[in-house]
Amino acid sequence: MKMVRKKVPKATINRLPLYLRGLVNFYSKGERVVSSTRLAELIGTNSAQVRKDLSFLGEFGIRGIGYEIEKLIEELSQFLGLAQAKKVIVVGVGRLGSALLGYNGFKERGFEIVAGFDVDPSKIGKEMNGVNIYKMDSLRKIVKKIGVDIGIITTPAQKAQEVAEKLVEAGVKSILNFAPVSIEVSDKIPVRNVDLSVEFQILSYYLSKGEKSIIKRGNEKRFGEGGKPSIK
Amino acid sequence: MKMVRKKVPKATINRLPLYLRGLVNFYSKGERVVSSTRLAELIGTNSAQVRKDLSFLGEFGIRGIGYEIEKLIEELSQFLGLAQAKKVIVVGVGRLGSALLGYNGFKERGFEIVAGFDVDPSKIGKEMNGVNIYKMDSLRKIVKKIGVDIGIITTPAQKAQEVAEKLVEAGVKSILNFAPVSIEVSDKIPVRNVDLSVEFQILSYYLSKGEKSIIKRGNEKRFGEGGKPSIK
Repeated sequence: MKMVRKKVPKATINRLPLYLRGLVNFYSKGERVVSSTRLAELIGTNSAQVRKDLSFLGEFGIRGIGYEIEKLIEELSQFLGLAQAKKVIVVGVGRLGSALLGYNGFKERGFEIVAGFDVDPSKIGKEMNGVNIYKMDSLRKIVKKIGVDIGIITTPAQKAQEVAEKLVEAGVKSILNFAPVSIEVSDKIPVRNVDLSVEFQILSYYLSKGEKSIIKRGNEKRFGEGGKPSIK
Repeated sequence: MKMVRKKVPKATINRLPLYLRGLVNFYSKGERVVSSTRLAELIGTNSAQVRKDLSFLGEFGIRGIGYEIEKLIEELSQFLGLAQAKKVIVVGVGRLGSALLGYNGFKERGFEIVAGFDVDPSKIGKEMNGVNIYKMDSLRKIVKKIGVDIGIITTPAQKAQEVAEKLVEAGVKSILNFAPVSIEVSDKIPVRNVDLSVEFQILSYYLSKGEKSIIKRGNEKRFGEGGKPSIK
C-alpha cells in the first residue's frame, strides 16, 4: 500500500468532474478503454495535462493503451468523495430554486435535496417534488437535525450575503450560490459562485470575435444610456 | 490610435466576465477605483494574472493606484461584445427551461429570450413570461426570421445532440447546453456545456478533503451497487 499526499491544483479539481462526465458518457456507449488524447479533446485541453491531472489519482493508465474507463470512473468518484450521499438544501424557492428542486438528476448522482426554505407564506408548508418547504426561521433547527452538506442559494442578489451567513451559522458545510453577486464567508466553508450570465458573456465574446479580430483602441465609446455601465 | 491584435487565451476569456461581475458589484457600492490585488482576491487568482488578463483590453491601469472601475466596466463590456443585445431561444421548456424563461436578469444584461420551443402539445402556443412557445417544426422558420445569437438546450440528455444539430442547421450562431451530455457540432459554432452537477462534485471534493488529506492507494474499493459506476 502506497501513501499519496495530495496537493491538487484548483484547476485540476475543476476538470475532474468533466473527465468523469465524459467517461460515463463513453461507458454508456459501450466503450471500455480511453486514451488521454481523447479525454483531452473532450474537455478542450492537451493530453499531457490529462495525464498530469489523472496522476493525482494514482498510476493506473497503461502506456500505449490508455485508461480503463470503469476503473477510472470509480477512482474519480472516490477521489471526489461521491461515494457518500450528500444532503442538500435550497434557500429561495423561486423559479430557479423550483427548477433545482424538480431536477431528478442530482439525486441520481448522490446529491439529495432534503429541504427548501423561503420567506413567502404561500410556499411555506407546501411540498414540491417530494421536498418540504420551510420558513427561514426553521433553518437552524432543521440543519442541526438532519446535517446538511451543501446549501444552495437561489434568493435575489440583495439577500444572498445574509442567507450565506445564516447557512454558515446553522452549520451547513458548503455553499453553492446562484444569486448574481459574490458572497463572502469564512475561509473554512467552500463556496462556489455560479452566475449563468457569465456563460452568456463568454459566448458573446466568441460571437463578436469575428467582427473585431483587430480592435481599435483610443476611441472612448460609451455604452447603454448616459454613459453608465451597461451591466446591472 | 493604436491597433491591438488579439490572441486571448481561453482561460482569460473565461475570467473576464468574473472581473466584470465583481466590478459592477464594487461600483454599486460606491467604489470608483480598484487594485489588481483586490480583483485577484475576488476571483481567486493572483495580481500578475489580473494585470495580464486586463492587458488584452489595452493599457489603462494606473501604477500604484489601480483601475478606474467605470472605465474598466465599459472596456470589458465592449471587449465581450455586450453592447449589442443578443437574441436567445430556449429549446426544451421543462423545469429548467421555464426557470430560464422566467429569469429577468438575462434581459437586464442584454440577453433577450425571444422564443421557446418544445414538443409537448400542452405547452405549444402558450406564452411564458411574455415569451411564445413554438413547436420544434417551426424552429428553422423562426430562427431565419428573427436571427438568433444563442440557442439554449434544456432538453433531456438523449435529445440534446439532435437538437444541437437542428439549431446549427437553422442558423443559430452559438449554443449553451444544459443537458447533462457533451454535444458535438461544427467547430465554427461556439458551444458552452453547463452541467450543474459538476459544481456539486467540486464542492464534494472539498467536503471530503478534510477526511482524506492523505489517501490510501491500493485498496480496490468499489462504489454503488454491484461495483457499477455510481454516476449515471
